[in-house]
Parts: sequence; C-alpha cells; structure tokens
Amino acid sequence: MSGNSFGKLFTVTTFGESHGPAIGCIIDGCPPGLALSEADIQPELDRRKPGTSRHVTQRQEPDAVQILSGVYEGFTTGTPIALLIRNEDQRSKDYGNIVESFRPGHADYTYWHKYGVRDPRGGGRSSARLTAPVVGAAAIARKWLKEQFGTEFAGCMRQLGDIEVPFQDFAHVPDNPFFAATADAALIARMEDYMDALRKDGDSIGARIDVVARNVPVGLGQPIYDKLDADIAYAMMGINAVKGVEIGAGFGSVAQRGSEHGDELTPQGFVGNHAGGVLGGISTGQDITVSIAIKPTSSIRTPRRSIDKAGNPVMVETFGRHDPCVGIRATPIAEAMLALVLMDHALMHRAQCGDVRVATPDIARNAG
Amino acid sequence: MSGNSFGKLFTVTTFGESHGPAIGCIIDGCPPGLALSEADIQPELDRRKPGTSRHVTQRQEPDAVQILSGVYEGFTTGTPIALLIRNEDQRSKDYGNIVESFRPGHADYTYWHKYGVRDPRGGGRSSARLTAPVVGAAAIARKWLKEQFGTEFAGCMRQLGDIEVPFQDFAHVPDNPFFAATADAALIARMEDYMDALRKDGDSIGARIDVVARNVPVGLGQPIYDKLDADIAYAMMGINAVKGVEIGAGFGSVAQRGSEHGDELTPQGFVGNHAGGVLGGISTGQDITVSIAIKPTSSIRTPRRSIDKAGNPVMVETFGRHDPCVGIRATPIAEAMLALVLMDHALMHRAQCGDVRVATPDIARNAG
Amino acid sequence: MSGNSFGKLFTVTTFGESHGPAIGCIIDGCPPGLALSEADIQPELDRRKPGTSRHVTQRQEPDAVQILSGVYEGFTTGTPIALLIRNEDQRSKDYGNIVESFRPGHADYTYWHKYGVRDPRGGGRSSARLTAPVVGAAAIARKWLKEQFGTEFAGCMRQLGDIEVPFQDFAHVPDNPFFAATADAALIARMEDYMDALRKDGDSIGARIDVVARNVPVGLGQPIYDKLDADIAYAMMGINAVKGVEIGAGFGSVAQRGSEHGDELTPQGFVGNHAGGVLGGISTGQDITVSIAIKPTSSIRTPRRSIDKAGNPVMVETFGRHDPCVGIRATPIAEAMLALVLMDHALMHRAQCGDVRVATPDIARNAG
Amino acid sequence: MSGNSFGKLFTVTTFGESHGPAIGCIIDGCPPGLALSEADIQPELDRRKPGTSRHVTQRQEPDAVQILSGVYEGFTTGTPIALLIRNEDQRSKDYGNIVESFRPGHADYTYWHKYGVRDPRGGGRSSARLTAPVVGAAAIARKWLKEQFGTEFAGCMRQLGDIEVPFQDFAHVPDNPFFAATADAALIARMEDYMDALRKDGDSIGARIDVVARNVPVGLGQPIYDKLDADIAYAMMGINAVKGVEIGAGFGSVAQRGSEHGDELTPQGFVGNHAGGVLGGISTGQDITVSIAIKPTSSIRTPRRSIDKAGNPVMVETFGRHDPCVGIRATPIAEAMLALVLMDHALMHRAQCGDVRVATPDIARNAG
Repeated sequence: MSGNSFGKLFTVTTFGESHGPAIGCIIDGCPPGLALSEADIQPELDRRKPGTSRHVTQRQEPDAVQILSGVYEGFTTGTPIALLIRNEDQRSKDYGNIVESFRPGHADYTYWHKYGVRDPRGGGRSSARLTAPVVGAAAIARKWLKEQFGTEFAGCMRQLGDIEVPFQDFAHVPDNPFFAATADAALIARMEDYMDALRKDGDSIGARIDVVARNVPVGLGQPIYDKLDADIAYAMMGINAVKGVEIGAGFGSVAQRGSEHGDELTPQGFVGNHAGGVLGGISTGQDITVSIAIKPTSSIRTPRRSIDKAGNPVMVETFGRHDPCVGIRATPIAEAMLALVLMDHALMHRAQCGDVRVATPDIARNAG
Repeated sequence: MSGNSFGKLFTVTTFGESHGPAIGCIIDGCPPGLALSEADIQPELDRRKPGTSRHVTQRQEPDAVQILSGVYEGFTTGTPIALLIRNEDQRSKDYGNIVESFRPGHADYTYWHKYGVRDPRGGGRSSARLTAPVVGAAAIARKWLKEQFGTEFAGCMRQLGDIEVPFQDFAHVPDNPFFAATADAALIARMEDYMDALRKDGDSIGARIDVVARNVPVGLGQPIYDKLDADIAYAMMGINAVKGVEIGAGFGSVAQRGSEHGDELTPQGFVGNHAGGVLGGISTGQDITVSIAIKPTSSIRTPRRSIDKAGNPVMVETFGRHDPCVGIRATPIAEAMLALVLMDHALMHRAQCGDVRVATPDIARNAG
Repeated sequence: MSGNSFGKLFTVTTFGESHGPAIGCIIDGCPPGLALSEADIQPELDRRKPGTSRHVTQRQEPDAVQILSGVYEGFTTGTPIALLIRNEDQRSKDYGNIVESFRPGHADYTYWHKYGVRDPRGGGRSSARLTAPVVGAAAIARKWLKEQFGTEFAGCMRQLGDIEVPFQDFAHVPDNPFFAATADAALIARMEDYMDALRKDGDSIGARIDVVARNVPVGLGQPIYDKLDADIAYAMMGINAVKGVEIGAGFGSVAQRGSEHGDELTPQGFVGNHAGGVLGGISTGQDITVSIAIKPTSSIRTPRRSIDKAGNPVMVETFGRHDPCVGIRATPIAEAMLALVLMDHALMHRAQCGDVRVATPDIARNAG
Repeated sequence: MSGNSFGKLFTVTTFGESHGPAIGCIIDGCPPGLALSEADIQPELDRRKPGTSRHVTQRQEPDAVQILSGVYEGFTTGTPIALLIRNEDQRSKDYGNIVESFRPGHADYTYWHKYGVRDPRGGGRSSARLTAPVVGAAAIARKWLKEQFGTEFAGCMRQLGDIEVPFQDFAHVPDNPFFAATADAALIARMEDYMDALRKDGDSIGARIDVVARNVPVGLGQPIYDKLDADIAYAMMGINAVKGVEIGAGFGSVAQRGSEHGDELTPQGFVGNHAGGVLGGISTGQDITVSIAIKPTSSIRTPRRSIDKAGNPVMVETFGRHDPCVGIRATPIAEAMLALVLMDHALMHRAQCGDVRVATPDIARNAG
C-alpha cells in the first residue's frame, strides 16, 4: 500500500537504498514447482548492471543475486522467494554538496518535502539502482511465462536525443552498448560520438525505448480499471525518468480514422496491430507493443540554479557517477516491468476463469 | 482485485452495463463531515452525458444520480456512499448483428475469449457509459480537494484528427461542443464541418486531450511503484480508447538535454515545468500537466472485415448510436480520473506523514 | 481498504444504513458462466430476514433482492454483480432519544468518537441489517462451490443463555424458530418460554452458534497470515455482536495433550477432527467446524446509565424494534461468512496452483 | 495477496524457512522520523527466542537482527525497512524420517496437498520460527505507538494444560520461564514439574494466553469488515497453533444478559469492560483484552499412526528439537500481533479522519 510492492498475485516488494548495505526483494505468489536457481536470474541482472561500457555509470557493482528462501532442492515451493543483492561500490562522499540543496529535475526536492528526512547518498531510495531487484524478480516471471505459454520479451532503443534508431532485428541488441536493434555500424559509431560529446559537456540526454511481448495468452486483463494496458502504463511510468507511454499506435492514433485504426480480422487472424495487442483492456493474443519516453538524467555536471533547504539560492553541480543517458539501461528494465504485468494478469485470469489459453488458431501475430 | 475498483483509500467500485437496468458505484473511504448532496455531483455528470450536441451519440440519458447511502443530514458520515444512475434509453435491438461477430478494434473479441460469455447490448460492460459513475465519484473527490487545499481541475481538447487546437483559456471550454479552450469561432466552425463530414462518411476520428490540476499539495505520491505519475498513467490509460499518456514534457523529453529539461529552482519557485508537477513520483506543488491520445471510435458504419464466433469471415457494420469521436466527451472523464488519483494520494500521504501541506512559499506555479 | 469490502478475489463491497432508502452490495470476481437469478439468492435472504417469529425483531422487511448487473441471459458474465434491497419499514422516530446519547454496549459511542458524525436511525451503518447483502452475496458463492466441489454449509444454535442445545441433525433446523438442530419439542418449548420471559423483562441474552462446511477441497488457505482459519476468525468476529471464535477443539485444546489432540491418519482418512478441518492454515478436506459466541443485544428496554455527547450523565432506555437475542438470526449469517471465506480461498488457490481438488480418496470425513 | 503480508498501511512481508540461510521481513509504511536502531528491536526478539529455559526448544539461535534499509542517520525515512535474521543452528538431519510421511496434527499433510512440494526441514515455512521477523517488525510499531499515544502491550499465560494461572501483575512475567503474571513460587514449581513430566512422556500440552493493550486511542477500527476485533481475531488465529480467540467477555457473554454485559457509562468513564475495548468494531479507548487458546505441539516423541505420501500406513515419531508447549513462547508473539493490528488501524484512521486521538477525559480505563 505504501508503494513498494508491485503486482497483486505475483507481488514483488523491494527494499534498499543506493548506498545502504544491500538491496533486494520478496516475491510472494510464485507458483510452486518451477525449477529455479540464481543462474536463472543473474543473466538478466547482468544486462542491467552498471559499468558495462563508457556510456553508462562507472560504478562497479557485480549485482550478484542470492536466493534466501522459497526454493527447495531446485524448485519453487509456493512460499516467498527473497532475493538479496549486496551493494559493493558506494562512494557517498561524492554527494556531500547536495545534502543541503536540491538538484533541478531530481527527487531530492519532493522526498524532502514529503518525508522531512532524506537519504542523499546516491539518491537513496529514488536511485535507478532500485530497479535491480525488480529485474531479478522479473527473470522468475519470464521463466514461468516462457514455460507455460512460450511468452517472450524483447526491447530496444529507438531514439537517442534526436538520433532515430531504425528497428532491424532484436538479434543485434547485445552487439552494441545502446540496446539498438540494428547492425548499422555507422549509426552505432555516430551514437558513440554523440555520447562522448555529451559526457564532455557534462550534460545528459533523453531516449525512446520500445518493448514487445510475444506469444501472449489471449484474455489477460480486467475490464474498467485493471486493464492490461492501464497496468502496463502504470508499470512503465513508474520506471525512473519515464515521462510518456504509448501502446500500439499511441499518439499516432489521434490523427487516424476508425476505418484505418481498427484492426480487421480474417480467419487467419488480425491484419494489423494498431491496438498493440490490447482491446478493451484485455490481450488479443497478438504482440503487445509499448513505447516509452525517458527524460535526460537530472544529475549533471553543469552548474544550475537551485535553492537549499532554507530556501536560499544556490548553484548546484552534481558530482558522483551517473548515467549520462538513463535510457540506455532502461531496455531490460522495461522488459522486466512488462513481464511482471503479464505474470500478474496470467495468475489473475487463472483465478477468475480457471485456465489461461495460448493464442488460438484464429489469432495470427502481426508486426507491431 | 478483479479490476472494478479504483483507488486504495478513496475506493470507487463500479457496476453495470450499457443496457442493464442501472449503473452506479460505491465510494468507500470518503472522509466524514463533507457537505454533500446530489447537487454537488449532477453538474459533472451533465458535462459528460450523451446527447448534448450533434457531434456525440444521440442516446438520451438524463444521467440523474441518486445518493443511496453514506450521507446523513447533508454531511458524509465516513461510511460508503452509493450512487445509482438508471439507464433510460436503451435500444438493444440495434446490436442484433454483432451478437455473433466481433467489431474490429472493439472489446467484443477479447471479452468473448476471456469470459466465454458476453453482454453485447451497447458494448455491455466495455461501454464508455461506465465512465459516468466514476465522474460522479470524482465530483465528491473534487469537492473535498477544493475545500481542503483549493485544488482544481481543468481539461480541454488540443487536437481533433489532424486539426490542432491552440490553448487560449479554460474559460472558453463550456462555449463550444468540443471542450476546446479557444474563442476562435472560425476554428470551431472548421471542427464542426470536420465532424459533419466524418459522420456522413460513417467513420470516426481520434483526439488529444490535456488535463491539468492546480493548487496541488506538495509531497503526494509514493516512491518506486505507486508513484503519482505512474498512477496517473494507469488512470488515464484505463479510460476507454486511450492509447498514450504523457506527463509534463512527455515524448518531447526524448530530444531534450538535462540542462534544458531539469526545471531550475529559485527562492520564488520553479522556473519551468517540464516535469509536469512530478519529480521522483512525488508532487512538487506545481501544476500537474497530462496529455492523452484517444483512438477513433471502433463502432463505425463503414463495413469492415471480421470473423464470427465460429471463425468464419463476415463483414461487420455497426448500427446503434455512437460517438464519432469519443475524445470529445473524454475531457470531463480525464479530469475525473486525475481528481481520483490525487484524492487517493492525499489520503495515503495523510496516513503516512500525518498531514498534507498546500504549496509552500518556495513553490511558484508555472505554466504547463 | 476502508473496511466495507470482504474478500480479495471474490470481493463483496456493501453499502447502506438501517434506515436509508436501500442497502446492497457489489460482488466483484464471480467467475463467468454460473447460472444465476434472484431465485438463487432470495431463499437465503428469507432465512435471515426479520419478523419471522415473535422471538426476533418485528420490523417487516421483505428483503426482496434485485440483480442490477453482471448477469446476461441467465448466466454470470464475470463482471460485477450488484444486488439491491430496498428498505421498506423504517420507523426512525423510535430513535429520537438516542440521537444525543450513547447506548451502553452499542457502537453509538465509538462511531461518534471516530467520525464526529453519526446516523442514529436504527443504528445506521452498525445495524445487523447490513448482514443482508452479504447473505445475498454468499448465496452466489454457495451455488458456485456446490456446483464445483459439492461443498455445503450448515449451522445451528448450540446454546441460548444458559440453555444448552444438543446437536441431533441439521434437518431439524428449519422446524423451529431458533435454528436448533433438534427435534426435542420440550426443549424448544423451554426456549420459547425463556425468550418470552426475557422479552417481558425488557432484556436480552447471548447465544453460541456452530457452523460447518462439508466437502471442502483440500489445500485452501495461505501460510503465515491469510491462513484459512485466520480468515474464518476474521469473518466470524466481524459479524455483529460476536465476541469469540473457535475452530475445531477450540478452547478445549488448552487442556489436551498432543497425543490426544493431533488427529491420526490411516489409509481410510483422518480418525478424528480436533483440527476442525484446518492444519497449518490450510484445509485438510475434512469438515470445517467453527463455533462462535454472540453477546446479548445492546439495545434493551431496561434503563441504564450513560452519558450524552456533552459528557453529562443520562439514563438510556432503547425503544424501537430489536432482536432480544441477535444470536437467533446469526446462523444463516455465519454460514454465509464461512462460504465467502472458502470461495475467496478457492479462487486464490486456483491462481497459485492452477487447480482446486476435491477431497482425495485418502481423506475420510469425520464428525466435528 | 498470497498470504505472506500482514497489514494494509503498515505492511509486514516475511520470508524464510526454518532451515534456510535466513529469515526476515520488509516493513512498508513506517512513518518517517522515528528514531530507530537494532537496539530497539533486539529485546523483543530476545523475549521470543528459543533455548532460554529447559521448557522450550533447545535450538540455539541468537536471532540477531540487522536493519538493511529504511533508516538514515538513526531515523526512519518513510521507505521500506528490511530486517534480516540469519539461521545459525539448523539440524536438518533430524527430519529425515518425516520427509515421506505426515505428522498427525501438523501442516505436513496440507502443504503437500496444496503445493505438491514441501520443505520438510524443521517444518519449513510452517515453523513457528517465522514469528521472529514479525516480532521484530512489531517492535517498531510498539515504539511508534508508545511515542505517539503512550500505548503499551502486555501478555501472560493464564492456563497450562489444566493448571490455571491467576493474574497478579504483569511485573512478574519476566521472573519465570512461563510468562506467568504471578509471584506464586509454589505454582511456578508445579508448572516446572508438570513440564518435566510431560517432556519425559514425550508428549505436549496446550495453553491459554491473555494479552492487553493499554492507552489505546479511541476510534480505531472500521465498520462492517475491517473491524478492530475482526482484525485482532485474524491476527491471533494466524499465530501457529491457535484454535480460539476471545475479545472481552468472550464465550462468557453467551450466558450473559444485556443488562449485565453492556458496559454502562458515567462522566468518569465506562464502569466495566465486558466489551474488551471494542464496540461496533471500533476502539472505545479502554484496554483491549484478548484471550487465545493454543493447541499442544504436534511434533511429539510418541509414536502415532499416519500415512506416507503414497497413502500407506506408517508410524510417525518426531525427533528434532521442539517446544513441548508452544504456548509458552506465544506471549510475546501475541503482543506483537496486537501491536501490528493497532498500528495499521492508527494509520488508517489518520488517512480517513485526519487525526488520532488519545483517550478523551470521559474514558476511564477499567480492569479487563
């Protein structure tokens, strides 16, 4: 209820701060009988972890995950699964100058006004570091969904600042530091130069990320409020720095006519996917397609006007180690959130309707 | 849990279908001692109700609300408030041809696959008619927020198909049938012509709506998951036909630098509002600014390809009375959803921190 | 969250006050495809309704239930089911003398101190009349559980004041006004005399009620907190006037040794049921046996010391129509609450484990 | 939702098994600004921990608690507090003989049927060891309630098998190994002998425990379902081995008349407390008095009939280290659960009504 749990039936409750001794989560509601070990979780954490290229924060965290409970002799027992990740590379002294003042565009200001107390070390609870436990939890959801329905998740960067990144194939994503689904080496080089220049300027930049779920069961989602797309929007907007979410045609649907937007059906399936895989809040069995806008990092080395706790004017410049584009590492996070939403809805559907069905023969998947 | 309740502490649970005997809701968690009668609620329902111009559905519903409980001698008692709205003008025979087949772009298909049973009359539970009880519930939230903090809500249409609608002043909204915040009579005439042509074509169109909350307390919202902006995204994406949500700079933030996007602070307050009134998931006390994309109505008079329940190809053409642009009536609905989110977070903040503060002297409101 | 909803997956939210225009509820989470009409619900309401003998309140309420939503062509659709019951026979003037003062043993005092406002007519929200919608909702749960698993519920009075009522057979329950499971005419006559004398004295009395569920699926209940027995205790203690709850051997287990209490197992099943059908918070498949203590009605015609809102001493004597033993009508209510708990847990188990199993061959049912 | 969280606004989610690497919990919803360190928590864990006398299990666990998050420079920050307790003294080999069969009266049977997989080491998740994190979480609640309202909790054993234990003064509780509120040395000696004989017999025994909360704010609790007494019943029945719960007069109220049971009021306060501090589900400001029945431990050294997983008859005798009377260590656990219920309701009341009031001048506290 106080906002640190995600999901109703597959519930992930996280704890920790950027510079505390550890971060982690409890996953309550994982079905029993799933084969599970740390080896199923670590690879997803490795995709998200810092320090993997010069374009992301240089903080060195192994993000090694330990399962503390809920698994017996290699299988989940249906009881809570606790994940623990130790923080290894804090440099809290870097934050001395922001203890008393607020970084423009940062949660410093609102945490202070809400709670009257604030852990300033590395952003405390508001740090994007807190996405690690969720990525870990989602790895479990992904494994279950894959085994049950063949559901898979993928994501890529589609825009970096004003550089558009065409989509070629998700297979290219691991081959560059930007999660770009392209093999265009010239484009990647241009992005590298762009980031190098930005870093030199002590500035940051926004990004747009696309994520997709494939082999989605039909019928997931609740009418009226807990619509599948509403829960996806909630999940995505909850990721640090996200300012916009689109499903399917998104803002493009504003200028569309109904005769264009509404995806026709044939016995071979839908003939388009403007819906993004959701109609009336319930999954169609088509690909679920989501696009998100990520704002530029607020912690930058450029001096900016601000105030201190007493309301006096100050200039603030952020030291410490930060991602100049938080959007780069957002791809595995967005995939994780999408997986958690589908997991929760799969269990909910099972409660209500007694089964979950994979895409029926009349559903042909279509490009996003 | 089954998706028919909105809010955790100010909880609205709705019931009803488009063509059943009645629709309504129970509001659980309204603070005691609020002066309340139907006269506080009816005006908001009247803003949303059908049949008010030739550009919306011609179904004639007075949408007269009755309070069944929770109010004693003119004041709320802290116990559940039930609202009842009778359906008066059903014409279920109009839907005979869609009982066995699925309208492209409509929830027909997904409801059928989820539940195996479906009320096809007027869209049943998936009808936008079900936004009426929520608008009623939100009228109560709006009254309480206004009295406690001076918080106010406004909204307007900013785009109709490819016609952009400049923002002049919310005062103009009641003066035209489109909820346009403009006094430009030529533009309104152009929009009227556009809608007339569309109706003649038997087609529909999308729209973009902006909503804003003013005089928002600082500190509302939870870190990590129940962020204020995440809950706003959830609320907005849950409105029928919405495909995209932006807070503050939204998708525009993708191409912004941190030195541009991050709103500086001075002793007189923030000097911009790219954040849209939310930082780190918590309200800053500035205006909360939201923009949503609404897809074109899926029920249109143009024949389209589809399948029936047996999977056979059919052509579907929707009769019955429908809004050719559901975006028109979406403005009061979006305002209502924003009010419900803030109400819920105001109570949650009170639980956690013991008080709710209106904007402090160091917060200057800024244009959206 | 504000205490007017029961259940997590089969969620019943009630509204109404004793003397308002109507009472009712919304049931969210009923599985689709259940054949349902008012005729399935009314008989349970008739068992609970007032005015059926001289030993209960003489208020005449038909308690005629109307289904407002969630059922289409005779089957549930999976969307919310709203039940409406009109109040017909209010006599609010009877309560004039308690508007300003507090009845000893009654919620008057606490409602006033909690909310600062209170509907005194017939006890307002705190009236046992509010159990009617729940009994209606439970009738739906009972039908579903019966169809799915053969689960059945029964209850009876076991003690009236200091008169113990032996259990013979549930078949006798409808044949006397006390829900006594006995054909002992002399005992019934004694109970009638006892109640007549009590009424003449203007006083009231307590009672003990037993309820049982049979043909319960094995495996229902959650470890640690949402244990099946914990949820049963919650449900029972929430019934008006209940002051004690026992499962299985209850308080008798205090003086038992482990070698006596622990029910042994054989290939033919358990050889006893001290557990009351629950071990470790999870159903064993045996009968679930529950016993509850109900205090005497607080509204009595005997003058008693109290204070008014200003804290001045007053004498209070309650007029109006009241049950001299609220325990009499508690039997169908307790059955209803037990059914709601099992319904909710059946859906929860289905979410987690994918199926719900009826009692396996190794479970022999045993007398309570 | 899957039953491993307790509380709605002060939410404790636990993890761990008896013989896993660690147990612990996340507390979400603790108000910010509370001075907190391990030293505030450890004493309550020490009261509950095993191995403190020969009458409880001889497992040696320091139960040393570590705070992993949510506290900064000695004060709570409003973000989740994670508590970690390492398991130190597992002897899993003791359980070899029950891997394939079910102990009579134990959760072995139901866990197996529910999940199809079970951690048998020390009872796995069903072990009373899992009450440790909750006692830790409750220490935080107790500190906050004490500081805000002066609320205090106490408990004692009132019956051990058929030995009744009179109440003299809570001050005597720490002076004997039974949590008995008496200075009667002869009685304590009799209890010691009783336990020694029982242990020699390889058997176990039940107990009755009383707990009380003092200086309780008035107005805590929700009408209808989340009544304060309903939530107390839920909390208490959820403690391992509890089979009965009473509030105030409890089962004694069955034989009481209304003119006796209903506590009169005078300007000096209530003149009795049959209500146990709760009327209509809401606290009166009087002491809250609760009594619970605890069954005898199911793990005993006496051979008993059971079946194995295949349904074949077996004799089961439990080795390992067990409490011969789980009721002995239940006192601090019951106090903890009561504190968690009050904490949650205090926050909920604050959300709804904006303040929480300590007992008003018109409330005189009375003996239970």
